Amino acid sequence: MERVLITGGAGFIGSTVADRLLDEGVDVAILDDFRTGRREFIVDALQRGAELFEGDVLDGALLGEAIDGCDTVFHLQANADVRHGLENPRRDLEQNTIATSDVLEAMRAVGAKRICFSSTGSVYGDAPIVPTREDGPFPIQTSLYGASKVAGEGMIGAYAHGLGFTGLIFRFVSVLGERYTHGHVIDFYRALKADPTRLQVLGDGRQTKSYLYVQDCVEAMLTAAAHHGDDPGAYVYNLATDETVTVDESVATITARLGLTPEVQKSGGDRGWAGDSPLIHLDTERIRSLGWAPTLTIRDAIARTLEWFEAEPAIVFDQEPSHS
Amino acid sequence: MERVLITGGAGFIGSTVADRLLDEGVDVAILDDFRTGRREFIVDALQRGAELFEGDVLDGALLGEAIDGCDTVFHLQANADVRHGLENPRRDLEQNTIATSDVLEAMRAVGAKRICFSSTGSVYGDAPIVPTREDGPFPIQTSLYGASKVAGEGMIGAYAHGLGFTGLIFRFVSVLGERYTHGHVIDFYRALKADPTRLQVLGDGRQTKSYLYVQDCVEAMLTAAAHHGDDPGAYVYNLATDETVTVDESVATITARLGLTPEVQKSGGDRGWAGDSPLIHLDTERIRSLGWAPTLTIRDAIARTLEWFEAEPAIVFDQEPSHS
Repeated sequence: MERVLITGGAGFIGSTVADRLLDEGVDVAILDDFRTGRREFIVDALQRGAELFEGDVLDGALLGEAIDGCDTVFHLQANADVRHGLENPRRDLEQNTIATSDVLEAMRAVGAKRICFSSTGSVYGDAPIVPTREDGPFPIQTSLYGASKVAGEGMIGAYAHGLGFTGLIFRFVSVLGERYTHGHVIDFYRALKADPTRLQVLGDGRQTKSYLYVQDCVEAMLTAAAHHGDDPGAYVYNLATDETVTVDESVATITARLGLTPEVQKSGGDRGWAGDSPLIHLDTERIRSLGWAPTLTIRDAIARTLEWFEAEPAIVFDQEPSHS
Repeated sequence: MERVLITGGAGFIGSTVADRLLDEGVDVAILDDFRTGRREFIVDALQRGAELFEGDVLDGALLGEAIDGCDTVFHLQANADVRHGLENPRRDLEQNTIATSDVLEAMRAVGAKRICFSSTGSVYGDAPIVPTREDGPFPIQTSLYGASKVAGEGMIGAYAHGLGFTGLIFRFVSVLGERYTHGHVIDFYRALKADPTRLQVLGDGRQTKSYLYVQDCVEAMLTAAAHHGDDPGAYVYNLATDETVTVDESVATITARLGLTPEVQKSGGDRGWAGDSPLIHLDTERIRSLGWAPTLTIRDAIARTLEWFEAEPAIVFDQEPSHS
């Protein structure tokens, strides 16, 4: 990697990738429209020489400018709202599916042939086998978000097969850590700061979730990228810890850490919303076979995230609550 | 089914569905832009009361008109050119992925909740296990066509899961029979009519293919639709015979039937073009468990197709050659 374009490069994961690549002496171009990305996250990267292209990845002229001279793209920009997909079906279609097609075409135009793509464990739908392997049973999608990521994965596969692209497809669980600004840990934190006496939880609290610390996530992506170099093909990796936590356990970790004993009020049912998967637990043998292992447990990642919330109240309380 | 919209209803399979539904007393609306559909195929259907909406499924106003009053959609319109996907990546994206999103939204707008969708055995890519089951290993896509069909399947899954749609997803092998106008059997036929002394074949001739007779294909779709009624969910069925033929065997059947002994010239290699799957052989236990079985073998289906060619020279020689 000599010069890398990071779409969504001002976001939670994207800005962390930017910092890591800059550490390694890579030239970095950041494309972000700041819809969910934040200027605070890339102040340091820009000072260290990263170049910012501000706007939408669907803006072809801007994308063409941003990708010029790059050999690799971390395509991390996406609509990541699993919950409200059916309220606005064009959003996943445009921001995820069409955007990925545009990125692949922009890559072809400049001869960039390596793409690292943030897919999701949600592509497994209601997985009949857990922990779920990358080559587990061909799933039925349960969300437009999952569908749009499967679409992106598929297009990357076609470019790898037909044009010799190197496609690295990462199926993430939810990611936690510094700069995390979207998902249930921050929702719970904000709610408890507003009212420490009670906490409302969607579902029955027994939904099992898996989380991964952001630095471990980025390390895994870079490990896989280094392993495959520019080998043509599409390579899929689950990225997760081997643990899971229930929402109840996650709440317990958060409240213990904050020293609170709220009354927890549950909406009931085995899933929080239509399209939520009641169980996401990924088999990580494949990425571990490359020598990678996570450094933080889920509880430690939650704790690290809470420390960051405490240190950055201006960021934490500057956003609307949302679930993921 | 009281009133059914058939997108691509003037096409090979769509017009056959139209005829069958009319036989059963169903009201039929046909949406077709005649890019590959043919007016000859629906003359009879229109005389029997089918209503034609002429234009592109991407024309929202037209789609809205066509779907009005329908409870079910056979969404069969698609770009079906597996071979040239990477030469024009927007085509699969628009005509398949975006079109399917549009159809689902149009259905939601009028309260139609059942969709029968023509997917493809190409979604299995280079399947590691053959015959391939519907829930076989999560595949890597090898063509933009396959990617666009996986995208369509995924969106249907999300509408089924979140909105209670009944999604019937049919993964076809190539279909043969009356009104077949696109694929290697017609290419070979045309080539042999032009020059009976030699035949050029892409690949080494050992590529294994599976075919299904169009009436068997339509019967399978109607069997599955009747079985599931309006049960919410996404149901995936492979549609194929249990046999396969090699391209060599297919050529032998065609030449024997035509009484020709051409010199067969092969380009070599184990696949005909980038994105071609060297082996598509589908496990059909699932659709057979509903009581369906094909009535014609692949050889009989080829023979039936050749009979139709001989009967319809005006249609057979009015098109550009292409492979599928």
